[in-house]
Amino acid sequence: MTASPDIENLITRLARLPGLGPRSARRAALALLQAPQTRLQPLSEALETVARTVQTCPECGNLDSQAPCALCRAPDRTQDLICVVETVGDLWALERSGAYRGHYQVLGGTLSPLAGTGPEHLNLAGLRARLARGEVREVILALGATVEGATTAHWLQSYLLDSHPDVRVSQLGQGLPMGGALEVLDDGTLMAALAARRELQG
Amino acid sequence: MTASPDIENLITRLARLPGLGPRSARRAALALLQAPQTRLQPLSEALETVARTVQTCPECGNLDSQAPCALCRAPDRTQDLICVVETVGDLWALERSGAYRGHYQVLGGTLSPLAGTGPEHLNLAGLRARLARGEVREVILALGATVEGATTAHWLQSYLLDSHPDVRVSQLGQGLPMGGALEVLDDGTLMAALAARRELQG
Ligand SMILES: [Zn+2]
Ligand SMILES: [Zn+2]
Repeated sequence: MTASPDIENLITRLARLPGLGPRSARRAALALLQAPQTRLQPLSEALETVARTVQTCPECGNLDSQAPCALCRAPDRTQDLICVVETVGDLWALERSGAYRGHYQVLGGTLSPLAGTGPEHLNLAGLRARLARGEVREVILALGATVEGATTAHWLQSYLLDSHPDVRVSQLGQGLPMGGALEVLDDGTLMAALAARRELQG
Repeated sequence: MTASPDIENLITRLARLPGLGPRSARRAALALLQAPQTRLQPLSEALETVARTVQTCPECGNLDSQAPCALCRAPDRTQDLICVVETVGDLWALERSGAYRGHYQVLGGTLSPLAGTGPEHLNLAGLRARLARGEVREVILALGATVEGATTAHWLQSYLLDSHPDVRVSQLGQGLPMGGALEVLDDGTLMAALAARRELQG
């Protein structure tokens, strides 16, 4: 053991974050410990706050300090347009691009017959409720260009065309590189993909 | 703004850690929020604990949950050998190498005439006290192979030979790549440098 158990525990916790290996976790812990007022306390308080306040939006699956989330509450967003994404990270990426001003549905995953993930594992409650209330004009499928993303999009397309033939279903068009997750794309690619979305025929 | 103010604040705090840019801070925040029980709470508690317990050792300048630190208290470490390092990160690197079993003095910086950093800005109290008590047989200067490190080593060498001519002064030998900080060296390099330390003549 190098440092005290408390410090080693902090390093272990930091090392489990994506993007931080054991070595950079050690550097990060040291940077925190060497600046208790300006780094450690603010990060500690930020974590306490989100742990206390942030929850999954019951309508769309977004993460926010209020429920329903700020996006679901926003009166200036297009109410009858729903964009279906896999993860909150994908939602954040689309929001950062500024290209989309409707509502969202965060599935929380994708269909994967091999992994045993069926439609019952997807978060679809909010979408189903909005469809049932007749609020939806168009559903944009913004799933990743992966096998699982395509499988999920295909199932959603069938489901929507079957149950709500009056609702338009489209998916993001050109611009999605194969195998890429939405989250890592730049804003321009996301804007182009959104602008070039194409309607899916039954 | 993409996420809620609380989440954006967390991302901002994470992005200020060394090794995490804005993009990876966003991914890290999402990973924390999506696993509140297994990631967020443990990290939050680890930070609270170190904020409450960790302090600078009044003897050597190490960071630890007790004062004096575990290294200064350890009865099985060589009591009359002091290794002078620039930072706690350097101390950790030497401890990880397992090559050193004496005491430390963490300077907290280096001499830099250009930056206006003089000897009065270095943490030397513990070393001075140990020298005054006649406890020290050898001081190992383990400073980085930089201009500032060399300046600091030179000053310390003069100071020690002047004030305590009976104390041996050595510095890390072969193995230190030029311009490199100790903290990023592998254990083998550190062990070789320590084994090949050479005594400095007045
Ligand atoms: Zn919502
Ligand atoms: Zn100590």
